[in-house]
Amino acid sequence: MSKVLVFGHQNPDTDAITSAISYAYLQNKLGVEAEAVALGEPNEETAYALNYFKMAAPRVIDSVKPETNQVMLVDHNEAQQSASDIKEVEVLAVVDHHRIANFETANPLYYRAEPVGCTNTIILKLYKEKGIEIPKEIAGLMLSAIISDSLLFKSPTCTEEDVAAAKELAEIAGVDMNAYGLDMLKAGTNLSDKTALQLIDADAKSFPMGGKNLRIGQVNTVDVNDVLSRQAELENEMKNQNEINGFDMFVLVITNILDSDSVCLVVGEPKEKVEEAFNVKLENNQALLKGVVSRKKQVVPPLTNAFN
Amino acid sequence: MSKVLVFGHQNPDTDAITSAISYAYLQNKLGVEAEAVALGEPNEETAYALNYFKMAAPRVIDSVKPETNQVMLVDHNEAQQSASDIKEVEVLAVVDHHRIANFETANPLYYRAEPVGCTNTIILKLYKEKGIEIPKEIAGLMLSAIISDSLLFKSPTCTEEDVAAAKELAEIAGVDMNAYGLDMLKAGTNLSDKTALQLIDADAKSFPMGGKNLRIGQVNTVDVNDVLSRQAELENEMKNQNEINGFDMFVLVITNILDSDSVCLVVGEPKEKVEEAFNVKLENNQALLKGVVSRKKQVVPPLTNAFN
Repeated sequence: MSKVLVFGHQNPDTDAITSAISYAYLQNKLGVEAEAVALGEPNEETAYALNYFKMAAPRVIDSVKPETNQVMLVDHNEAQQSASDIKEVEVLAVVDHHRIANFETANPLYYRAEPVGCTNTIILKLYKEKGIEIPKEIAGLMLSAIISDSLLFKSPTCTEEDVAAAKELAEIAGVDMNAYGLDMLKAGTNLSDKTALQLIDADAKSFPMGGKNLRIGQVNTVDVNDVLSRQAELENEMKNQNEINGFDMFVLVITNILDSDSVCLVVGEPKEKVEEAFNVKLENNQALLKGVVSRKKQVVPPLTNAFN
Repeated sequence: MSKVLVFGHQNPDTDAITSAISYAYLQNKLGVEAEAVALGEPNEETAYALNYFKMAAPRVIDSVKPETNQVMLVDHNEAQQSASDIKEVEVLAVVDHHRIANFETANPLYYRAEPVGCTNTIILKLYKEKGIEIPKEIAGLMLSAIISDSLLFKSPTCTEEDVAAAKELAEIAGVDMNAYGLDMLKAGTNLSDKTALQLIDADAKSFPMGGKNLRIGQVNTVDVNDVLSRQAELENEMKNQNEINGFDMFVLVITNILDSDSVCLVVGEPKEKVEEAFNVKLENNQALLKGVVSRKKQVVPPLTNAFN
């Protein structure tokens, strides 16, 4: 049997990268020859976490079939968010906290999804169920993912289980989770040296909705106006991406991690569906989304309802 | 919130019925108002188990929307095997041991699948993880499901975990699992008073394969010739069902639970795909499938390969 590859979604965030690392380590301890890889380079937030805990970034791949017939997915299941040739290999296991869609197997598999805020919260349970000890630096990465996905426990996706898991992991990692967490989140908001494409696409995912193809990106910042000062450049690149990739609409959610509000910037049609979804009026293609920080819980569901 | 309905697949077998009971009981203990229901009446094997452990059969339903917006699925996930209006309600949880296909949700959910022989083997883990004690009679039903799905541990779907779970449950239930198991399996092979339709359809499931729509039924017996003595009548009813329901092919797997072989009976086209799948020659529409007892592991995969 060739090596099993373990990876998170395209445009990886901190949970996608670190859950591959933590799950592959667990599999190794259980006797499976598994390697954590990634479908993209770490973003600056993730790089901060990897650097802090002195861990290497996983090798970047985009297809799997040349290397292996067997994979394990973390932090995603939908084929369009996965490796380009995912349908040609066998998925042995999935650990995820998203909805299930566009996912099909020929054989029974291990599938563990729970409606919690972070994949690593589930992986912590798996370590405990199997009685495997978590090394300090892997605990640090798992903690980083929970802080990232929950925006330091402020997101509505954050559950009591996520908070409890973070406390437990911070203990093992030996860090003050609030101080470390704010430093890590801020490291991810250094946007000045990013191109417009990097800004809009870093965290973007595709969502088919009511016959339309939406691209939804999110960028975290401590100053929304700093990002909006580049609005013309961003809109130009969003329009460009819509044309190249056949997206009907690009929605960029610019989230202030300190006050937990977002501004959305919209390029494409039909814009009135966005207004309907959030009960707002777009002016100059933007609108304030009060209290919105979670794409999964506060952006995708209302858009899905409006488009369907 | 209205009551959550918990149920297994259409044409329920012992695992489908009893996993609904054991999972609904667990949910009740966790504070969820859940009711076990079924998408069909218990077969004779299941009736034997229910009667032995003095448990009532779950109420039979075929649609869920009139009663609730929220359901939990056990022992299945594919929409065509579920309630007729499954796509109109929210699936909160799935506990299953089959492949994942034709299953999609709008929201994150709890999904627990493992490649073991029986759903109740997974449910036993869930009881332990939550620290909930299993009542004697529910343990007896869970044991019955493992015996049924594994044909008393002879099926290739049976894992070490299934055997260990069965031993543990037999202890709680206070029965000798081998003696009780054989009695239960035999109770399920009383076929004399069954109509041809009952025989072919009791355990049948639909499987889309390479553009064709296959119906695959299985019947357990201690005397294959006893069933084959009714071949003309069975073929007639299989042809009838193909026409009524638009199946391209009906495959009936007649399994001898004592010697662990099966004979398949095939009505519909293309028959050469069946011959290719099992490397046999059909004579008089039948062929011996040596050592084949598991539809999931030994019938569906080779047919899927041959049809694709």
